[in-house]
Amino acid sequence: MYLTQALKRTMQLEGRNTATICGDRVRSWNECGERVAKMAGALRKMGITDGERVAVLALNSDRYFEYFYAVPWAGGVFVPINIRLAAPEVAFWLNDSGTEILFIDDNFLHILEALDGQLETVREVVYMGDGPVPNGMHGYEDILAAADAVPDALRGGDDLAGLFYTGGTTGRSKGVMLSHTNFVCNSYNVIGGMRFRPGIHWLHAAPMFHIADGLAVFGVTMVTGVHIFIPAFTPEDSLEAIQAHKISHGLFVPTMMNALVNHPDIEKYDLSSLESVAYGASPMPEAVIRRAMEVIPDCGFIHAYGQTECAPLSTHCGPEYHVFEGPNAGRYKSAGRAALGVEIMICDEDGNEVPRGEVGEVCVRGPNIMLGYWNRPDLTAEAIRDGWMRSGDGAYMDEDGFIYIVDRMKDMIISGGENIYSAEVEDVLHRIPAVVEAAAIGIPDEKWGEAVHAIVRLRDGETVDEAAIIAHCHEQIAGFKCPKSVSFRDEPMPLSGAGKILKTELRKPYWEDKQKQVN
Amino acid sequence: MYLTQALKRTMQLEGRNTATICGDRVRSWNECGERVAKMAGALRKMGITDGERVAVLALNSDRYFEYFYAVPWAGGVFVPINIRLAAPEVAFWLNDSGTEILFIDDNFLHILEALDGQLETVREVVYMGDGPVPNGMHGYEDILAAADAVPDALRGGDDLAGLFYTGGTTGRSKGVMLSHTNFVCNSYNVIGGMRFRPGIHWLHAAPMFHIADGLAVFGVTMVTGVHIFIPAFTPEDSLEAIQAHKISHGLFVPTMMNALVNHPDIEKYDLSSLESVAYGASPMPEAVIRRAMEVIPDCGFIHAYGQTECAPLSTHCGPEYHVFEGPNAGRYKSAGRAALGVEIMICDEDGNEVPRGEVGEVCVRGPNIMLGYWNRPDLTAEAIRDGWMRSGDGAYMDEDGFIYIVDRMKDMIISGGENIYSAEVEDVLHRIPAVVEAAAIGIPDEKWGEAVHAIVRLRDGETVDEAAIIAHCHEQIAGFKCPKSVSFRDEPMPLSGAGKILKTELRKPYWEDKQKQVN
Repeated sequence: MYLTQALKRTMQLEGRNTATICGDRVRSWNECGERVAKMAGALRKMGITDGERVAVLALNSDRYFEYFYAVPWAGGVFVPINIRLAAPEVAFWLNDSGTEILFIDDNFLHILEALDGQLETVREVVYMGDGPVPNGMHGYEDILAAADAVPDALRGGDDLAGLFYTGGTTGRSKGVMLSHTNFVCNSYNVIGGMRFRPGIHWLHAAPMFHIADGLAVFGVTMVTGVHIFIPAFTPEDSLEAIQAHKISHGLFVPTMMNALVNHPDIEKYDLSSLESVAYGASPMPEAVIRRAMEVIPDCGFIHAYGQTECAPLSTHCGPEYHVFEGPNAGRYKSAGRAALGVEIMICDEDGNEVPRGEVGEVCVRGPNIMLGYWNRPDLTAEAIRDGWMRSGDGAYMDEDGFIYIVDRMKDMIISGGENIYSAEVEDVLHRIPAVVEAAAIGIPDEKWGEAVHAIVRLRDGETVDEAAIIAHCHEQIAGFKCPKSVSFRDEPMPLSGAGKILKTELRKPYWEDKQKQVN
Repeated sequence: MYLTQALKRTMQLEGRNTATICGDRVRSWNECGERVAKMAGALRKMGITDGERVAVLALNSDRYFEYFYAVPWAGGVFVPINIRLAAPEVAFWLNDSGTEILFIDDNFLHILEALDGQLETVREVVYMGDGPVPNGMHGYEDILAAADAVPDALRGGDDLAGLFYTGGTTGRSKGVMLSHTNFVCNSYNVIGGMRFRPGIHWLHAAPMFHIADGLAVFGVTMVTGVHIFIPAFTPEDSLEAIQAHKISHGLFVPTMMNALVNHPDIEKYDLSSLESVAYGASPMPEAVIRRAMEVIPDCGFIHAYGQTECAPLSTHCGPEYHVFEGPNAGRYKSAGRAALGVEIMICDEDGNEVPRGEVGEVCVRGPNIMLGYWNRPDLTAEAIRDGWMRSGDGAYMDEDGFIYIVDRMKDMIISGGENIYSAEVEDVLHRIPAVVEAAAIGIPDEKWGEAVHAIVRLRDGETVDEAAIIAHCHEQIAGFKCPKSVSFRDEPMPLSGAGKILKTELRKPYWEDKQKQVN
């Protein structure tokens, strides 16, 4: 079982048909496959042998896609770098992974300059842009033109295919080691669960370094779909691309979905080609998904839940559960049920399954579970218990196997001994029409240990005061869950590279000299 | 990756819903799963430990289904026995596999009697029927009731899961060793390719010992489908079951499909629940598939091609290619294209890929390829070359990856140096309205080496003579392909347990003192 098998099969089936669309560049599967085999030749010529790391720091493009296949074809390991990192963090990822070759585009050359002398293992840099090749770098198209196609290295099974770093927003980043089997099994699970069919048109709008879009790189190829790239998410570029390229499938994280479906011009675009849109990577405010279902009524929405360590899909909740009436009403609030080849168990702290309906930690088992953390057997042993990956997420499971995520364990607020799930509070805050963004965090409180604090950003020109917000919450949820205080901010919330609100950043000013209790 | 994962997941998702329907017995997934865990406990109590073989010789039933899960749950290896075998052949399979426990139903007790003293390794027999338990055997329900559920043995990956014997109709049978990964990956490929969806209703009409139906045991469970069993295929029982249980999916070998769609009462049944019917295991006469599409017009037909060694699916040709007009017209005559996780290559005798359009041997690579032949590393080495399984089938591939099977290499007739594919001749014979069954074989010929000989069975009361049949062929295919002689038979063709016409039997009288040239 190996990653490049799908590329070869799709070349055999659809060789003359379109593989990638990136701006004006359109390439067939035959062209794409030949370029991959030649880029693999170039990597081999640069000394890449089995298991060596090749990183990329770039916005989305067809070349990023080719990279994802050329590296394993050459026998190497891909290491996609978070595009939001500061230079020292990039240095840590590259050095920690022992990356030998770095692919980079124009947007990140300044980071490379800032790191002069700090990269311990990178010995070659490949420039992926279209401008003149910077001094000391190889031009992507130059080395490709000069290389001969090489046979596939045929690494597979439990061989390491990619290193995806997680965290980086809190504590030290960890390299998640994902194997060929991990990726292929995840693709199978995605195809079965996310309604992939032959010939789908996938919009790569979420950043490709993140495994939430990465899943589509491999899954879409496997079903002979077409890949369409925009450099980075903006609502305008996404809407344009959906209309121009008849996008049928895509994935947006909640912050992107929010920006997309609340875009003032959304009605002007023809979005009727959309069959299936997945969302995930962080909790989706109910108001946003309801709005999405209103403005793109013929599209099926799928909540995909997972994490990098699970390659990433663990559960999904499909369009049949995005309904407001009948026996499945309200199930769209769940993260759905175990994906095809995945086992899900809700556990107590000792790893025992808890009864249905009780909150515990989501644990995941299957061939999609990572090999471990790179050079961190200590963390691997903590994370994987008897083959079960501990997600760090709190959830309960209903009688039909649907899981309801209540919070990241570490985002849970504990006030007066009660567990309060920030996602629940945020959902209520989002129901206030004037609220654009909202976060609930725990702040130090002498009496309760932690108190719920709300941080909100209002729509331009709208006003609502602290008392009104707190009163609104009291109408909807139990008193102990309601914010005791509210702060307002004008600028957008700080986001991680994956578009998640950085709670750690929001909490920082309140906890500077105190220790946040992490469950 | 392990077989019983799907059972546990389906219990979690659909525990209270129907799993199996067998006559009057209807069981939920919770019941079914509990019975499996208890039967595994019974097997453990009888001394089955990891990797030991447990065989079954029975008609289709819900208990046969439970057996397929209980054996791996206990850590054992299932060995389904062909129901058409003579007693000495059964003895060979049981002894060769080193089977320790045999499950058997009423229909095969006489075989066991005939084998008294000849079974070298079988030490316990489990009676699967509903009558009184024969002396010296365990009753299926008795040992189940007395057993405690045991935890899953959790064998998986490359661990041996099942032994499926092939051949047996010619030469010595070989035990095909299939792993957990083989079966799970095949299920994924089937789900992606054969339009399995949650909640399908599958009719187990083809014999469950054969992997063509076996694929459904695991794939249907994986998508939370419902299993409906009839003991053995008859057109009447199949039609009744389709109507009564709203069957949506099933698989029929061509001889079954022929009997089904040409049944005089077919119009009296409501078959509108049928969404997708697969056929395969031997070439389908064109007249039969055309007739099927006429009488079940809303059903999608899928030609599934594979072999036991590929667990079994290699390629498939879906409903979109079962059309008579447009760019895909005629493609239903192909075996379709590579299944999701499968690579297909058409090779010459040295293992090099031949150009598109040229006939060579179908070779298959992927995680579905068997571990090898049981105790026959010599045959394994012949069959698998550089990871590619040599199918023994001759085919060519078109520009879009569709493969057209021209014949079993060994059924090919070589006359005057020309390769003649018996399937092509049989297709022409089937176009004669009076013909019910037809076979083309090579018989010894002094001048040409082999001459094409047709064997036909006519519809009751119809007549057509040798000259007319030969003349009909001359109108449709090249002279060298046409039968030089025709023989008529009144009784049905001899069939293998999988419903394939036994060409070896038909050839025997002509070749008794000669050596058939096998390619």
